[in-house]
Amino acid sequence: MGEEDALRFLADRFKATQKEVLTGIGDDSAVVKIRDKACLVASTDTLVEGVHFRLGTQTPRQLGRKAVCVAVSDIGAMGAVPRYLLCSLGCRSADSMEFIEDLSEGVAEGCREFDVCLIGGNLSESQTVFINMTALGEVSSDDIVLRSGASEGDDIYVTGTLGDSALGLRALSGDCGIDGCEGAVSRHIGPTPRLQVGRMVAKRGIASSMIDVSDGLFCDLEKLTSEHGLGAEVSLGSLPLSPGFLSLCGRFSEDGYRLALSGGEDYELLFTSSSQNRASIEEVSRLCGIAISKIGSVTAGGKIRLFDEGGEEVFYDTAGFEHFC
Amino acid sequence: MGEEDALRFLADRFKATQKEVLTGIGDDSAVVKIRDKACLVASTDTLVEGVHFRLGTQTPRQLGRKAVCVAVSDIGAMGAVPRYLLCSLGCRSADSMEFIEDLSEGVAEGCREFDVCLIGGNLSESQTVFINMTALGEVSSDDIVLRSGASEGDDIYVTGTLGDSALGLRALSGDCGIDGCEGAVSRHIGPTPRLQVGRMVAKRGIASSMIDVSDGLFCDLEKLTSEHGLGAEVSLGSLPLSPGFLSLCGRFSEDGYRLALSGGEDYELLFTSSSQNRASIEEVSRLCGIAISKIGSVTAGGKIRLFDEGGEEVFYDTAGFEHFC
Repeated sequence: MGEEDALRFLADRFKATQKEVLTGIGDDSAVVKIRDKACLVASTDTLVEGVHFRLGTQTPRQLGRKAVCVAVSDIGAMGAVPRYLLCSLGCRSADSMEFIEDLSEGVAEGCREFDVCLIGGNLSESQTVFINMTALGEVSSDDIVLRSGASEGDDIYVTGTLGDSALGLRALSGDCGIDGCEGAVSRHIGPTPRLQVGRMVAKRGIASSMIDVSDGLFCDLEKLTSEHGLGAEVSLGSLPLSPGFLSLCGRFSEDGYRLALSGGEDYELLFTSSSQNRASIEEVSRLCGIAISKIGSVTAGGKIRLFDEGGEEVFYDTAGFEHFC
Repeated sequence: MGEEDALRFLADRFKATQKEVLTGIGDDSAVVKIRDKACLVASTDTLVEGVHFRLGTQTPRQLGRKAVCVAVSDIGAMGAVPRYLLCSLGCRSADSMEFIEDLSEGVAEGCREFDVCLIGGNLSESQTVFINMTALGEVSSDDIVLRSGASEGDDIYVTGTLGDSALGLRALSGDCGIDGCEGAVSRHIGPTPRLQVGRMVAKRGIASSMIDVSDGLFCDLEKLTSEHGLGAEVSLGSLPLSPGFLSLCGRFSEDGYRLALSGGEDYELLFTSSSQNRASIEEVSRLCGIAISKIGSVTAGGKIRLFDEGGEEVFYDTAGFEHFC
């Protein structure tokens, strides 16, 4: 069973019928109209020990901050403003009060950084440590950006750089050591959700669809295109890769593009936009101080096609990408 | 480290400073003002395998429904109306799609029963199965009932009956078999949150404080009294015990009162009310078809004192009760 299959089943099983539920299961966050144009945005996500983190490779404080980042990123990917968090923590009874205090410090740090307030908490004993965060935010119905609004011919953009987090994870997990990979490790442990960019493209109405890159660029682009009967052409040479990634990826992967396409946990924003918005997007990039790279365009076909720098189509075993979802 | 200690630390660490957050960590649910008198109510809770349930003793469907009950009960205990749920499920990759489908059936059943809508979902791989539910509800600021409003002299009431769920859990866990305990087992596996009673006492403004009994009557009464510098006198003979409980509790415990006081997971409502509201409370009981029993009264002292049917004070090792919290 893949997570995607199960989520599709759940989205279908729990199709919202209430008219005030504008978006239910199946987007980054749910959107519920609360009055006039004011909408409540809600999302839930869990970091699980052994799956999303190992306790030895980061401090509880770093983990607490990351849980906040992951939660607010989903709210930002709707063009919304995150406001409140509820946290359910599962830990072994042997975990000390110090663990909870350190983790709380990290949560508090994330709350200050992204101007959100933790309003609810729950603590359970669990053999597997987990941190569930539910994030609540607000948005005007005019500003909501869904996963489903892309059109044929739209440009495809991604913020920041891709693959650093995946490289950082490999450096932490592997036996090559992390020498020289500190930057990538820090991207993995301490991601930066692109809240300001998300908010600005939403307010300007220039993103036709948007998602945060958590499962890897390829998988997440499928959610904006293939899942809605559209396709995409992506130029591998346009993928934004950091100098650190380019100099180090060979140590962990024979193919840096593969790592950047499928690594995941980038927490960058991936969005589509009509080509008439190019100047506006350049302005958003300048105002936010974040690179926003055009990596391809939306096509009519239901497939994502990848092209190398010479314009030749490249065929990856994308089933291998799905495995990371 | 006790859960209560850790939650007190978190409530203190994350004291909400925003004026729109009427109640943060430390009550059954958080309450946030969204406009005029309209408030959003939010709560998060997790059921963890091996702690809150064992997979062999109930079906995934029963578990899904119970997770909904536990979530909406927290909203109801504020006098609020539950509206939306977000569910984060952690399960082993070996757990079949059938497990997820069955669990979803139970969640859907609970959603229909309590008129709530699942708007968000997340699925993670986890060695320990867990089901986290975040419930969102609505309430007018006029109707909110907190844990903190009791006064000396108030009557103490509890709905339904106590101890059945704890007895059911013992029947499921022990080696005495469940013969004759089917009713208690079904209370444990399929609780009934008292949403209608909670809503009605809130609308009438007759509950000065309220909580749902999840950690056991004694622990939860402490949260309404001792934690606010008050005490309580409880008459053991007034505790509402079902005929089934009375006939069976001797099989599992030498002292039925102890089981009813500390067993937990009753999901009944415990509330305090001025003695002038007695007729109104009788009417609520009649209208809802649910027994509401007066079990004692709030006192000035910071302790909970228990009295037997002859009026003699009974001294329990209440540290043993805390153990169940």
